[in-house]
Amino acid sequence: MKRIAIDAMGGDNAPQAVIQGVNQALKDFDDIEIQLYGDEAKINPLLEMNNRVSIIHTEEKITYDDEPAKAIRRKKDASMVLAAKAVKDGQADALFSAGNTGALLAAGFFIVGRIKNIDRPGLMSTLPTIDGKGFDMMDLGANAENTAHHLYQYAIMGSFYAQHVRGVAKPRIGLLNNGTEESKGDPLRKEAFELLAADSNLNFIGNVEARDLMSGVADVVVTDGFTGNAVLKTMEGTAIGIMSQLKQTVLAGGFKAKLGALLLKKDLKKLKSSLDYSDAGGAVLLGLKAPVVKAHGSSDAKAIYSTIRQIRSMLDSDLVEKSVQEFERLKND
Amino acid sequence: MKRIAIDAMGGDNAPQAVIQGVNQALKDFDDIEIQLYGDEAKINPLLEMNNRVSIIHTEEKITYDDEPAKAIRRKKDASMVLAAKAVKDGQADALFSAGNTGALLAAGFFIVGRIKNIDRPGLMSTLPTIDGKGFDMMDLGANAENTAHHLYQYAIMGSFYAQHVRGVAKPRIGLLNNGTEESKGDPLRKEAFELLAADSNLNFIGNVEARDLMSGVADVVVTDGFTGNAVLKTMEGTAIGIMSQLKQTVLAGGFKAKLGALLLKKDLKKLKSSLDYSDAGGAVLLGLKAPVVKAHGSSDAKAIYSTIRQIRSMLDSDLVEKSVQEFERLKND
Repeated sequence: MKRIAIDAMGGDNAPQAVIQGVNQALKDFDDIEIQLYGDEAKINPLLEMNNRVSIIHTEEKITYDDEPAKAIRRKKDASMVLAAKAVKDGQADALFSAGNTGALLAAGFFIVGRIKNIDRPGLMSTLPTIDGKGFDMMDLGANAENTAHHLYQYAIMGSFYAQHVRGVAKPRIGLLNNGTEESKGDPLRKEAFELLAADSNLNFIGNVEARDLMSGVADVVVTDGFTGNAVLKTMEGTAIGIMSQLKQTVLAGGFKAKLGALLLKKDLKKLKSSLDYSDAGGAVLLGLKAPVVKAHGSSDAKAIYSTIRQIRSMLDSDLVEKSVQEFERLKND
Repeated sequence: MKRIAIDAMGGDNAPQAVIQGVNQALKDFDDIEIQLYGDEAKINPLLEMNNRVSIIHTEEKITYDDEPAKAIRRKKDASMVLAAKAVKDGQADALFSAGNTGALLAAGFFIVGRIKNIDRPGLMSTLPTIDGKGFDMMDLGANAENTAHHLYQYAIMGSFYAQHVRGVAKPRIGLLNNGTEESKGDPLRKEAFELLAADSNLNFIGNVEARDLMSGVADVVVTDGFTGNAVLKTMEGTAIGIMSQLKQTVLAGGFKAKLGALLLKKDLKKLKSSLDYSDAGGAVLLGLKAPVVKAHGSSDAKAIYSTIRQIRSMLDSDLVEKSVQEFERLKND
């Protein structure tokens, strides 16, 4: 049985969306057990009875306005903190929240703890490509600064994830850079390039440019947290911007445009959902002793459900144990 | 008379697109004089006679495959090099090419030369926003590394450009960061924040996130060249990706979808052109002794025309001389 500790109070639509996603997941997957941390009075009316779900009542919670590290230290009974402690104490196998990202990162670092020999856990997400296959990118902002060695470790972890969770046979690893030539970039990129190229266990394909990410130039893309964060947010902002301009264009257009949009409505919805990477699950904080996963704050029931399915795959593939062994082996090399 | 030296052989569609753009610009603006550097035999048949245009014949040119700095040094008679030398020698007031970006940057740095007291020229473009007003961002990749002081100088130059060329009264300056709070970012951002906040001549609005760029959160956004390059290329890649998915969706859709797309065709074209920032001109290498402007390699006649119009505005507003004075003043402060 895979035991998932969920912060039921995290996210814009909590606890409703969280509980609805949980209800569906419990129906579809009979090998998971869910522990819900949060306000019993709010959770109970929404929850469908199931012997594989339990509520651990607490009224304290972390909000978006809380200063992450401080909140984790001071709000000892917050739903997110109790869920993280359950993982640390071996009562649960994975941690999931749609709440305050910084606080979840802090809970991951300080309560769940990192894998020995991994210097800096990083945030990874599966982002959309035109062909629908997606690519994994990290670090998306868990760190404001990274060394070349961190990037090298991200390549190993990202490759493991792509292989074992997404089923990509020999994940192509790319280093995000300001050009594809080997000599490109600042000292950080140049050093990372050398580390990546020197490891024959990795399917390193060299430098990749941000322009080619959506066309699927690599299965795994590594970069520092500052750049990763900027790239992720640019993708989001550009997609939202274009969709909103499309809408404006139609609204400002004449009858012909409106009729056209009406006829295209179903297909535009499909397009929007193909761009919506929440379908591939949440962002994973890789490098910790257990899967710690963050769903978008605006997650609906479907996104929560997808993230539970993703966590189940991570536990199924024994990703963390495989990472522990790999980094142990590397250390002894 | 504003004298513009143009590398007629630079760009995917050179010299055709270049000459067509020049023909139109000479018709519309009677205060410009164009010097075309390139192969006379190829340029002449395309050029409409005008006493404000001249051809300086050369058969050598720089290609996309040339290593930039080396090409500038060795190909002494290349069209781009001769055009740059004309600016250096005071025979022309501005340099324009749609060719090899790295080579143009090198020609700018080493031939045209930088303004005294400006440490590192940077590449700036006006990028699209939803409301159509656009924002200026720099450095977009002239440098792989920057200091906080460079970013501070970019804010001054970007603000000057927004004000004098785009007519924005008090340009709002944002520092691209991984969060809006003052304490965010790596040491580079923190130091840049302090420098920007300390200068009361700048309308500094604080940190801005990449997600909000397209909604027009600032008129000028400053960042280091590595991040700026990644953000710019992510915007391009995401826009291309979404447009291509939209097309696929329609092609895969039924009769209804195709009819809808047909009815929307004109409006979709309008959308595409509103996303096409080449209308706002090329990328400017700010910090040099004269305007040096790079148009996209795939520029058509319209993009070339827009860039000539932009250069004319830069010369009209005396942007370079104003920058020279401002940086002289700052030095003496």
